Amino acid sequence: MPKLVKKRSKKTGLPAGSNIHTGEKKTKNVKITRINYDEVKYQEREIKKIEKCFPFKDKPAVTWLNINGIHDAEIIEKIGEYVGLHPLLLKDIMNTDHRPKIEDFGDYIFIILKMIYYNEKKNKIEIEQVSLILGLNFVISFQEREGDVFNSIRERIKKGKGKMRKSGADYLAYSLIDAIVDSHFLILEGTGEKIEKMEEKLIANPTPNTLQGIHNLKRDMIFLRKSVWPLREVISCLERTESSLIEESTGIYLRDVYEHSIQVIDTIETFREMISGMVDIYLSSISNKMNEVMKVLTIIATIFIPLTFITGVYGMNFAYMPELKWHWGYFAALFIMAVVGVFMLIYFRKKKWL
Amino acid sequence: MPKLVKKRSKKTGLPAGSNIHTGEKKTKNVKITRINYDEVKYQEREIKKIEKCFPFKDKPAVTWLNINGIHDAEIIEKIGEYVGLHPLLLKDIMNTDHRPKIEDFGDYIFIILKMIYYNEKKNKIEIEQVSLILGLNFVISFQEREGDVFNSIRERIKKGKGKMRKSGADYLAYSLIDAIVDSHFLILEGTGEKIEKMEEKLIANPTPNTLQGIHNLKRDMIFLRKSVWPLREVISCLERTESSLIEESTGIYLRDVYEHSIQVIDTIETFREMISGMVDIYLSSISNKMNEVMKVLTIIATIFIPLTFITGVYGMNFAYMPELKWHWGYFAALFIMAVVGVFMLIYFRKKKWL
Amino acid sequence: MPKLVKKRSKKTGLPAGSNIHTGEKKTKNVKITRINYDEVKYQEREIKKIEKCFPFKDKPAVTWLNINGIHDAEIIEKIGEYVGLHPLLLKDIMNTDHRPKIEDFGDYIFIILKMIYYNEKKNKIEIEQVSLILGLNFVISFQEREGDVFNSIRERIKKGKGKMRKSGADYLAYSLIDAIVDSHFLILEGTGEKIEKMEEKLIANPTPNTLQGIHNLKRDMIFLRKSVWPLREVISCLERTESSLIEESTGIYLRDVYEHSIQVIDTIETFREMISGMVDIYLSSISNKMNEVMKVLTIIATIFIPLTFITGVYGMNFAYMPELKWHWGYFAALFIMAVVGVFMLIYFRKKKWL
Amino acid sequence: MPKLVKKRSKKTGLPAGSNIHTGEKKTKNVKITRINYDEVKYQEREIKKIEKCFPFKDKPAVTWLNINGIHDAEIIEKIGEYVGLHPLLLKDIMNTDHRPKIEDFGDYIFIILKMIYYNEKKNKIEIEQVSLILGLNFVISFQEREGDVFNSIRERIKKGKGKMRKSGADYLAYSLIDAIVDSHFLILEGTGEKIEKMEEKLIANPTPNTLQGIHNLKRDMIFLRKSVWPLREVISCLERTESSLIEESTGIYLRDVYEHSIQVIDTIETFREMISGMVDIYLSSISNKMNEVMKVLTIIATIFIPLTFITGVYGMNFAYMPELKWHWGYFAALFIMAVVGVFMLIYFRKKKWL
Amino acid sequence: MPKLVKKRSKKTGLPAGSNIHTGEKKTKNVKITRINYDEVKYQEREIKKIEKCFPFKDKPAVTWLNINGIHDAEIIEKIGEYVGLHPLLLKDIMNTDHRPKIEDFGDYIFIILKMIYYNEKKNKIEIEQVSLILGLNFVISFQEREGDVFNSIRERIKKGKGKMRKSGADYLAYSLIDAIVDSHFLILEGTGEKIEKMEEKLIANPTPNTLQGIHNLKRDMIFLRKSVWPLREVISCLERTESSLIEESTGIYLRDVYEHSIQVIDTIETFREMISGMVDIYLSSISNKMNEVMKVLTIIATIFIPLTFITGVYGMNFAYMPELKWHWGYFAALFIMAVVGVFMLIYFRKKKWL
Repeated sequence: MPKLVKKRSKKTGLPAGSNIHTGEKKTKNVKITRINYDEVKYQEREIKKIEKCFPFKDKPAVTWLNINGIHDAEIIEKIGEYVGLHPLLLKDIMNTDHRPKIEDFGDYIFIILKMIYYNEKKNKIEIEQVSLILGLNFVISFQEREGDVFNSIRERIKKGKGKMRKSGADYLAYSLIDAIVDSHFLILEGTGEKIEKMEEKLIANPTPNTLQGIHNLKRDMIFLRKSVWPLREVISCLERTESSLIEESTGIYLRDVYEHSIQVIDTIETFREMISGMVDIYLSSISNKMNEVMKVLTIIATIFIPLTFITGVYGMNFAYMPELKWHWGYFAALFIMAVVGVFMLIYFRKKKWL
Repeated sequence: MPKLVKKRSKKTGLPAGSNIHTGEKKTKNVKITRINYDEVKYQEREIKKIEKCFPFKDKPAVTWLNINGIHDAEIIEKIGEYVGLHPLLLKDIMNTDHRPKIEDFGDYIFIILKMIYYNEKKNKIEIEQVSLILGLNFVISFQEREGDVFNSIRERIKKGKGKMRKSGADYLAYSLIDAIVDSHFLILEGTGEKIEKMEEKLIANPTPNTLQGIHNLKRDMIFLRKSVWPLREVISCLERTESSLIEESTGIYLRDVYEHSIQVIDTIETFREMISGMVDIYLSSISNKMNEVMKVLTIIATIFIPLTFITGVYGMNFAYMPELKWHWGYFAALFIMAVVGVFMLIYFRKKKWL
Repeated sequence: MPKLVKKRSKKTGLPAGSNIHTGEKKTKNVKITRINYDEVKYQEREIKKIEKCFPFKDKPAVTWLNINGIHDAEIIEKIGEYVGLHPLLLKDIMNTDHRPKIEDFGDYIFIILKMIYYNEKKNKIEIEQVSLILGLNFVISFQEREGDVFNSIRERIKKGKGKMRKSGADYLAYSLIDAIVDSHFLILEGTGEKIEKMEEKLIANPTPNTLQGIHNLKRDMIFLRKSVWPLREVISCLERTESSLIEESTGIYLRDVYEHSIQVIDTIETFREMISGMVDIYLSSISNKMNEVMKVLTIIATIFIPLTFITGVYGMNFAYMPELKWHWGYFAALFIMAVVGVFMLIYFRKKKWL
Repeated sequence: MPKLVKKRSKKTGLPAGSNIHTGEKKTKNVKITRINYDEVKYQEREIKKIEKCFPFKDKPAVTWLNINGIHDAEIIEKIGEYVGLHPLLLKDIMNTDHRPKIEDFGDYIFIILKMIYYNEKKNKIEIEQVSLILGLNFVISFQEREGDVFNSIRERIKKGKGKMRKSGADYLAYSLIDAIVDSHFLILEGTGEKIEKMEEKLIANPTPNTLQGIHNLKRDMIFLRKSVWPLREVISCLERTESSLIEESTGIYLRDVYEHSIQVIDTIETFREMISGMVDIYLSSISNKMNEVMKVLTIIATIFIPLTFITGVYGMNFAYMPELKWHWGYFAALFIMAVVGVFMLIYFRKKKWL
Repeated sequence: MPKLVKKRSKKTGLPAGSNIHTGEKKTKNVKITRINYDEVKYQEREIKKIEKCFPFKDKPAVTWLNINGIHDAEIIEKIGEYVGLHPLLLKDIMNTDHRPKIEDFGDYIFIILKMIYYNEKKNKIEIEQVSLILGLNFVISFQEREGDVFNSIRERIKKGKGKMRKSGADYLAYSLIDAIVDSHFLILEGTGEKIEKMEEKLIANPTPNTLQGIHNLKRDMIFLRKSVWPLREVISCLERTESSLIEESTGIYLRDVYEHSIQVIDTIETFREMISGMVDIYLSSISNKMNEVMKVLTIIATIFIPLTFITGVYGMNFAYMPELKWHWGYFAALFIMAVVGVFMLIYFRKKKWL
């Protein structure tokens, strides 16, 4: 489960414009990778000094600059200066708690998205911020740490399969967004399986842990939802943009990814409804179980209380109690008690309490 | 109940554009049927090789090409090539988990819908994806497997009754969509009957199974709703389109089917409200039943506890207990106990606890 | 309570356009009444053969043709032919499960509405479909059976009071719609009284029947709401129409009836909220009542258990129990028991459990 | 609490346009007051015959005609005739159950509002309908009975303070509406205090009466809300109107009163949320209290049941029971019982049940 | 927790326009501070008499006039007169219960906002109203008392860092609004931590205090939400304004602060959902705990009741009870009782009730 609110105290009250990384520092060293490609060429290089990859704006090939690690203000400022980014954007890139957004500056489009994946080790969903800058022939992506959902894209660029190598930077940007939206489906698949397992457990043997599990699912959905709704807006905005940076032929792909984002939202809403139904089932089955315990126990108690009363009567020490003298009195008393007990059992069974 | 989320892992991360069938493979062999008709002629043929039915675009008669089975990428690609479909659409046709949508490409309109029917054998609602391509004088429909809700349409084309044979491909497309919307009414009728039976059970004899049944109904409604809302959007979009493929006279029919789709939504919402009211009734009647058990049992216990106390008093072994010596002491004690018991019964009855 | 979903199976799958009556057949014979009026003349006639009342379109007087019973396709088709109705409308008139709607065809406006009244005999709310066709100088109304809420309108036409006789067919149509909206107020008045009675019962003596009653009210509101929302849309649409069939002076009357329909919706929503509050009150008062029972009973039990323990102690048969030999031992024991009992009563009262 | 639905049966079915007062008759005699003012003059007169105050339309001074009592159709019709009101409005004025509305007729603007005040005697909120007619230089106000929230306005006109005397009839109308909106704040203040008292009670000592109180508050809010939402619409409509009757300088005042109406709505919604939270608190604290009772009582019972069992053992009459012969047997038994009791107390305390 | 509704009674009924301070008087003396700056100069002065700081409108430098304390009508009226404020605004400034709003008067823009901070002493969230007047080269800010969230802005102006000294009054106004929005994040951070602590408590050891704590959090969120939604509207309005007072380059900063306000709303909504989930968890864990108590206690009782019955049987005084004479009868009885007890324990354990 992600942190509820990341500490912003560091920033709050600082001059708007001072670039300070807000959020957890998730990687030690900044790693910069540059991929250059056009229909015929392909080059991938790790770069130590950011200046080395300039200039790339005027080259005909498409350049994809990927920066893992966003805590080093110097690198980001240098890139900002070269590309001509608005100072506020530098702050936005470094603030990992930013809401997904898109802004069109004419020369470039700035996009903030949330990448989502399941951390098997920590057994929880991780959300990582990805900032994209789409220029005429370049895409710059900023990630919080190494490891992402873009490997298949790298593969496709390398192998030159599909439209990728034939298309411009806008198609690359689309592919990155598509990969991010697809990453949600993996999480939702996992959640769907969890919900199904949980439902079986609910019927078989509900425990307080089950409720805790339902609650965690609910919480995951709240967080997913919080990040997916603005994602949808961003893609919708990108689809409807009239920026010259997006070729017309890419439009249909953006529409496709937009539909996927709506499907993610639909699924999250469906899950939310199902999970809230599960709480009802849980509460009612817990109360059923308890009721059953109470019922059986109370029945036992109730049968014996009248019988004990009878033993009490014949345990009294009155001088004159005719029954006590009868030879078969004891057995008669036992017989009466048996009759009373059996009668009550029959009565309970008739009332369907047993 | 349909699967919560279909496996998309196969696809996720693949180049956008690689046509891989996602979803369960529901039929073995692809079956292609071609129906040709105009006001005078009618021809129905099953086709083995898809190439055999080309060309149909330039013929004056209306062609309805129905493909059962969507896992064979080759066939779909060939059709796509002939009709000039955008590559993304081929992927959409094969992804059976796609959201209902409509897209107007000028030459043709592409529609994805969900057909719904009750599988008597498996005792559950089945949802099947139907993709339609409406061209100037042809309709191509893709289904996941054999068996559909279109038999009456085939009949009407064959017999030449009504407007069908006199109208163009747009009227055929309307008829298919109408049949799909009508298929929802059958399901809702069944659900309505289930709800009524469930309500009678709720009053007569609610069991944990009843709750499970209510929960299943609720879940069915969640899934129906998820598929009907975009259906409504699709029809609304089709009605408002200015495409030259739709003749003006078909508009009123589309408006009619749009109204039906709204009625489906209305009914689903009504059912949802009723089902959620049923959960309340269930919980309260379960708790009533339990309360009644507890009440009667507790009353029995309470009457005997004071009586047992009295027997305890006269069971004490004190040397000097004057009552014990009295000749009628025992009977007096019995009498007092009877009085106490009767008094408590009267008190309970007065308080309406009995 | 109306049926949840009317059987449509008869229709589903038939050629769009085949006129088959769907819904319960509510009257045996079709009864046709024609009222002709202008500022000076008034004529009311029952008509056996529909052809006899043609032609009425070209006459200067206003003609109101009322048809009770909609299962006779022939009559409706003849009217349709004479007036020039679109074939789909004939189907809509005969399908009594249609959603309220309005459609403007230039020459005539077609309206479907739901009339509502309380059936005293069956003790339930009945919903009946009314279809109106408003032409230049005629109104045709189709009802499911005899008996309606239009008697006062007939009276007003007959007596020539008010604007009616001086106005055209649009004012007549307005009057019919107004009468239908007003019929909702009668039902809501009745519901309001039921809610007030139910609330008194809730406080005085809630029983499981009370919950059943609340549930029924809730259900009535769900159904009323389902029929009123589209009614509002229809009237709003009629008010905003630019059809030449509606004179400008009728606009303000339509606005008035529109406001009434909003008031109906407001009242239904208010009732819904109140009813849902009543469920809470019911559950809490039932649980209060049960708690009270349990509390008093448990208190009695708790007082006597320690006392019974004391009698148990002095009922033991140990050879050496000094107290038993004391002359006042018995009375001392009784006194101790009384003290313990009184002390517990005081303790309970102090804790406000009594 | 206002009546749920006022009787409309009187009206329903009458010719639209027959002016019959619907609603409770709240005052005996109709009282008409006329205030005339301009920057220099001021005159206030009670008028017996409505004709006496005509003509006022052509005078340069502003005329405010206030009518207390709306059951006398004659007076209202005379005014209507003089001012040129549409017949429907006369009906609206007399129907005290009308929804707040505004209608612009060019020559005059017709407004229906709901005045609200707390009736100390009956200890409930009263809602009274006020109809306003704003003309070029006059305002006519219709109230159900004497007593209103306009006294301060009369005072301001009389004393000539502020903008009032310098402004036209539109400013007077604004002042009346402002007074009506302000009257809601008084009610909400009172409700706020009630909620705070209720919350203290909830924590200190919740009783079924508390729930009844919460329920009443909830109901009040439902009714207030029903009347305030259309009020907001009316004011918004008035602010945006382009009528020549409203001077531009009055616009900012209308915007101000519009903001107040939104604040009323905000506050009502906040109260609704808080009240619904209070129901949860109530239910949980009632159940806590009950649980506490049950727990303490059950603990007492549980401690004594094993002890009573031990006394039972030594109360048995077996011929050979070695312990009974021991000299210290009795005291040993008492000691064992004490040990068992203390041990159970310790156990309960350890488990935090005490 | 803020007061529910501030007393308005003082005002209600007064002439619109009479400037009376409504709300708690939060500071004794009004303190006026003037800051003058341009790119080269900087001056900060406390001012005793408001007249002394006039005229500032025509000076080229930016003037920021900050007034702490708003109960002195004279000072506010003087400022109003000098700047040319509409009389209504003076009333709005003094009414501390006003809804956040923005109004553009051409020469100046008037803004009301809510500043929020945590009062450590009183341990509650405090809301303070801030009114801003933005003119061509000046900003006037009115606060209820000393102490605000603007210190960092003063620091930045003084030190001349960042854009501040190079920009106009609009950038200053933006900075003030940004500081106010940022102040919400601090509160939300604190709330996030509280929620996390509360959740741990919920699982570890829920008490009625926990519920009270949840309820308080819920209430805080209701109030925050009430103030943040209009804040968002105000900023959105400011961002979209076409006023010449806002330079184009400031637009992107306003967009940034707008996004922050949306993030605040998102976070509040997320918290609301989580808090409402916590109530469910609380109720269910309280009921679980109670159930556990009841279960163990009832089990103890149930085991001993049959055993006590057996002791009762052998405590009866019948003359002929063969078992009593057996030498090992007593031990046999003890053995039987042990067997019964162990058997019941096994049964309970098997049923998973232990």
